[in-house]
Amino acid sequence: MRVIEVSSFVAAPLGGMTLSQLGAEVIRVDPLDGAADTRRWPLTKSGASLYWAGLNKGKRSLMVNMRSDAGRAIVRDLVATCPAGTAVVLTNAVGRPWLSYDELSAVCPDLIHVQIEGRSDGSPAVDYTVNAEVGFPMVTGPAGHGDPVNHVLPAWDIACGLYAALGVSAAARRRAATGEGDQVRVALADVALAMAGNLGFLAEAQVNNVQRQRIGNYLYGGFARDFTCSDGGRLMVVALTGRHWRDLLEVTGMHKPVAALEESLRADFSVEDDRFEYREVLAGLFQRWFADRPMAEVCHALTGTSLVWSPYRSFGQAVQHLQSSDGANPIMSIIDQPDIGPHLAPGSPLTFASAPFDAEPAPLLGQHTRAILADDLGLSAEEIEGLHRDKAVAGPLRRSSP
Amino acid sequence: MRVIEVSSFVAAPLGGMTLSQLGAEVIRVDPLDGAADTRRWPLTKSGASLYWAGLNKGKRSLMVNMRSDAGRAIVRDLVATCPAGTAVVLTNAVGRPWLSYDELSAVCPDLIHVQIEGRSDGSPAVDYTVNAEVGFPMVTGPAGHGDPVNHVLPAWDIACGLYAALGVSAAARRRAATGEGDQVRVALADVALAMAGNLGFLAEAQVNNVQRQRIGNYLYGGFARDFTCSDGGRLMVVALTGRHWRDLLEVTGMHKPVAALEESLRADFSVEDDRFEYREVLAGLFQRWFADRPMAEVCHALTGTSLVWSPYRSFGQAVQHLQSSDGANPIMSIIDQPDIGPHLAPGSPLTFASAPFDAEPAPLLGQHTRAILADDLGLSAEEIEGLHRDKAVAGPLRRSSP
Repeated sequence: MRVIEVSSFVAAPLGGMTLSQLGAEVIRVDPLDGAADTRRWPLTKSGASLYWAGLNKGKRSLMVNMRSDAGRAIVRDLVATCPAGTAVVLTNAVGRPWLSYDELSAVCPDLIHVQIEGRSDGSPAVDYTVNAEVGFPMVTGPAGHGDPVNHVLPAWDIACGLYAALGVSAAARRRAATGEGDQVRVALADVALAMAGNLGFLAEAQVNNVQRQRIGNYLYGGFARDFTCSDGGRLMVVALTGRHWRDLLEVTGMHKPVAALEESLRADFSVEDDRFEYREVLAGLFQRWFADRPMAEVCHALTGTSLVWSPYRSFGQAVQHLQSSDGANPIMSIIDQPDIGPHLAPGSPLTFASAPFDAEPAPLLGQHTRAILADDLGLSAEEIEGLHRDKAVAGPLRRSSP
Repeated sequence: MRVIEVSSFVAAPLGGMTLSQLGAEVIRVDPLDGAADTRRWPLTKSGASLYWAGLNKGKRSLMVNMRSDAGRAIVRDLVATCPAGTAVVLTNAVGRPWLSYDELSAVCPDLIHVQIEGRSDGSPAVDYTVNAEVGFPMVTGPAGHGDPVNHVLPAWDIACGLYAALGVSAAARRRAATGEGDQVRVALADVALAMAGNLGFLAEAQVNNVQRQRIGNYLYGGFARDFTCSDGGRLMVVALTGRHWRDLLEVTGMHKPVAALEESLRADFSVEDDRFEYREVLAGLFQRWFADRPMAEVCHALTGTSLVWSPYRSFGQAVQHLQSSDGANPIMSIIDQPDIGPHLAPGSPLTFASAPFDAEPAPLLGQHTRAILADDLGLSAEEIEGLHRDKAVAGPLRRSSP
């Protein structure tokens, strides 16, 4: 599979990178000044984007002036010359007829074309706006907090990028069987809406007519919360099952007070519903145990139980943990990223017994311009020089250069 | 494709439902008392789980006592009798050797087996614990807030479920070409870690040695924030590009004060970095414009611009919007869910020109037990009665029955 990607920001680059991790050859087509996200924060001191590098690992980059006829012809030729059964175009660019399914399938009849959009009517939307409109910021954050709380993780972009990769994979399976291409679309706003529906948030409002309230770090309908240790260390502790619950009572030694509460309140804490109903009372009791002990002692005590728990970490602490013997993770490896240097980077969390995978660095902008023009389009050295001279193509470009 | 799903909670059911939306036949194998999430909140008054119904749309349900040899034999036979090139087992159940790839591929050599885990070493983890350990709760929420802020959206479960569906699709494409099955694994903790890496959060800590701070509802490295109108209405407004920025100055009439600031501060607000650096000052100016106008007037004014924006809605308001002429969305349709009744439910946000798709209700527990035993395993009416009598199988079961 050969993926021609014209992309920016999170969803489309993640979709392309995911396909690369499944074995596809992915060619980013980058405009001469880089895509709109080429300098998105966080940046290194020298100005390279850690964000961009993270989302474009394992791809090749062809720099092309997509505003010029010559540049557009190169992209079209790249699609047209894909061997049968391999061509994929993946883009979040809208309003570019020359990049549309109709135009490109005319030169590549079995093309799979994936269009990522803000909304399915073509109008713009980004992760932070679709998150606002679907309802989650109004139920996130401390109980009683009056303002919406945005997420920092662009969860809708992530889901949208994975859907795009899935769309390519499903269409490719059909193409292998029928020889036919397909036109695939996924809109960020639809992804958010579908998940709010799938998880019952919309139905709760419509069927139950319930307005969900903020409940801080508690788990809705179950028993889970963050707890603070005597040295300030914090943990998230989740008791989903009866066994978890019994282990929580056991490890904290709160059997007796909890039983006394149960009797006096006529509650049944073996049932999740009652644990949720009285969550503050119960958490208050357990918190006394956590507050009496430093983090290390708490972790040691919880390790022997069935409870599901984890310390809260900052990103820096997460990196430190990865570098420790306890925290080493086989999906992380050190890659030497041009412009940035060696650092820990993830491979794919999805693993196949049939195909091991290692992380690869992202390209420099235009790193593969010459190779792609020569090897894939068969252009001569003179023709390639001419295209550079006419500023129809460019690269390689070190982003950190002045 | 025929997916045999033994699942609970979010990731695995979502993975199976996503495959169903791509055309697979999905059979849930439910234990006699339902899986651990069968009564997860939100519940209707009659006790049916809106959450469970949302994540199991379009599947069939076979109720089987998986603790009995007879029940396990039914599941094994169901896998063994799948036509060549169709069998998929998808599960998040761990510690069940009879459900493992090794056991089941012995009776179905081209099986695709997808195991969803908490951690890749088989130890447990859930969305809320992997979120805590990877770093996001420490940077989410209002600036200056001291406590971790958990997300309400189980973003890691969602990503993990989509990865699982993608793993099936990729393995099925390989199986169609080679005839070979595959063993696919994805761990929730790895998904969170990979995304924290892909988005540059880990590299920022490691390469830049920067500890990211909470910045409330601002967008890191750009200009975006929530604004409040005179009637209390709130909007998220995002200015990513130069054109967005110019439109924001234009619509709010803040050209002059912003230019004066720019000069006196020696800043260049045509550059994202400076807009982020002085975000509070700039947002303070714009907020004055929003505070002077009711929501309707603000929305009307923003509609003519290039800006990306959206009102904040509660889930209830999101449903109301869907029911309005402005907000109707073709991926949403009314389904009549047994035990729950008619309500708006999403189809797939991923669309293919080759294959339209409509949402279907979730099954009752064990709704298809008899049909699957008779049609797929070829059992006689007497044999099926015997299995019911021995409590090796059950269903259909109305969850809201007393």
